[in-house]
Amino acid sequence: MSRRIEIVEVGPRDGLQNEKTLLEVGDKLEMIRRLEAAGARRMEVVSFVNPKRVPQMAGAEEIMAALPHKEGRSRIGLVLNLRGWERCVEAGCDEANVVVCASDGFGIRNQGASVEEQVATLAHIMGVRRKEEPPVTLTVSVAFGCPFDGEVPEDRVIEIVKAAADMRVAEIALADTIGVADPWTVRRRVEAAKKAAGHIPLRLHFHDTRNTGLANAFAGVEAGVDILDASVGGLGGCPFAPNATGNIGTEDLVYMLERAGFETGYDLSQLIDIAHWASEKLGKPPASSLARAGTFPIARPAAGP
Amino acid sequence: MSRRIEIVEVGPRDGLQNEKTLLEVGDKLEMIRRLEAAGARRMEVVSFVNPKRVPQMAGAEEIMAALPHKEGRSRIGLVLNLRGWERCVEAGCDEANVVVCASDGFGIRNQGASVEEQVATLAHIMGVRRKEEPPVTLTVSVAFGCPFDGEVPEDRVIEIVKAAADMRVAEIALADTIGVADPWTVRRRVEAAKKAAGHIPLRLHFHDTRNTGLANAFAGVEAGVDILDASVGGLGGCPFAPNATGNIGTEDLVYMLERAGFETGYDLSQLIDIAHWASEKLGKPPASSLARAGTFPIARPAAGP
Repeated sequence: MSRRIEIVEVGPRDGLQNEKTLLEVGDKLEMIRRLEAAGARRMEVVSFVNPKRVPQMAGAEEIMAALPHKEGRSRIGLVLNLRGWERCVEAGCDEANVVVCASDGFGIRNQGASVEEQVATLAHIMGVRRKEEPPVTLTVSVAFGCPFDGEVPEDRVIEIVKAAADMRVAEIALADTIGVADPWTVRRRVEAAKKAAGHIPLRLHFHDTRNTGLANAFAGVEAGVDILDASVGGLGGCPFAPNATGNIGTEDLVYMLERAGFETGYDLSQLIDIAHWASEKLGKPPASSLARAGTFPIARPAAGP
Repeated sequence: MSRRIEIVEVGPRDGLQNEKTLLEVGDKLEMIRRLEAAGARRMEVVSFVNPKRVPQMAGAEEIMAALPHKEGRSRIGLVLNLRGWERCVEAGCDEANVVVCASDGFGIRNQGASVEEQVATLAHIMGVRRKEEPPVTLTVSVAFGCPFDGEVPEDRVIEIVKAAADMRVAEIALADTIGVADPWTVRRRVEAAKKAAGHIPLRLHFHDTRNTGLANAFAGVEAGVDILDASVGGLGGCPFAPNATGNIGTEDLVYMLERAGFETGYDLSQLIDIAHWASEKLGKPPASSLARAGTFPIARPAAGP
């Protein structure tokens, strides 16, 4: 077994976005460079949201200016609207990741737009996009449940996937933004999304809020998805569950996959070091399990009890 | 889908065994009674080890004397040797759970006996057991990796399963004692164990040390196992990874299973209450995710951001 799973590192964006402590641009750049050295090929490095609304994401243009384009690496910018798309193009991102929520309740509160309006924005971006401009990927957020509307029906999610597939986006992700999915539902939705997406690759984005993150990742990989988001150190809280943990930790996912024989291209011990570094910068213990427990098999046997 | 999964509550035994803070017998009894009220039908309530070696497990006889036999409930005692078996019979347990390690390194350090010697002890117990005495279940510990010997080969685990099946034990569990398993390996070992065990039911025991606990539970349930151990509040540390978490949390497992449509017979909100109660008694935050994040769907929608 040597199937390769691509892990998109989202720590610098989704990981930091919900942290109370703001990181300086210099620290963010150090984090990004260390993650590159640890094996991250695709990384969500910035978000083109209004820094007055999300101060954690300030400095997007400055960060992009300090990160040269490199062959085989992709610097991804998060985009919620047309203004974000224009900034993303101007900043020279390698990819734009456009978000469309699967529930009106979340869309209106989080992005000031209904699902229909967000799909229209995606269509508009795909319409104006010139071929030298960044490829557009789609992330369907709250695809497994919404903190305002509750359950999100599968049909609703698949309608958005179909619409995006018709627009020929480069990749489609289902995101469990608030960490409520179970692996059986993940399997069913992935199967439905695969049918709707045709040849467009799928990606999955899980939060570990209710401890189901790695189970959901396993279910997704078993259902044929080869691309997963994760965040070093399990960074990223959840504004709807203030004491809960965030994204699935990159090092936890790498451990699970590589222990089973998959290739990820990441260096586990470097990831654990970055998790501890970020944890010190943010003044809180790392949320990932690998950063606390270490890997296995243990290189040098522990002493007897 | 309304398949029933039986969750054996091991919080009062495995959960407390590695905690630094000792609980009084009265507190343990309160915990056991609250867990019963929350839906636990089978519960590992005591361990017949030497209380000088494991002070957390002192008071086994006192606890059993205070817990009357009830129809449809099972009070399980952990047994490591003949002396433990005799105490278990005398104390009137409804089941004896005998542990056999799958590695000599762990067996000799933890139980002062090689694998072969432990299998011989199990055979001896099965030989002297009279039919009115407690049914004997087997837990194969370190079945996915050992902190001393490293990797534990599948063949070694299956040999023990076969030997126990020949002795007609009542149930056979594979335990990931130090939390190193991945779900692909779980699936393979469960399939092999099913063949070796014949009609004897299988049980799985996972620790969440490296965040793979629920993924492993999902893999086990998908491979056909209907019985899983879990510990309220995710109690139970790991002496080999001092900062790591313990058993998979009962409330996390109940959440994952019931969200997917399985029946467990547990009341999630009572479990969360017990997790917080135990957390206060032990002076540390609950390790389970549900105790921190709460359940979903949320009964009353959260206020806007």
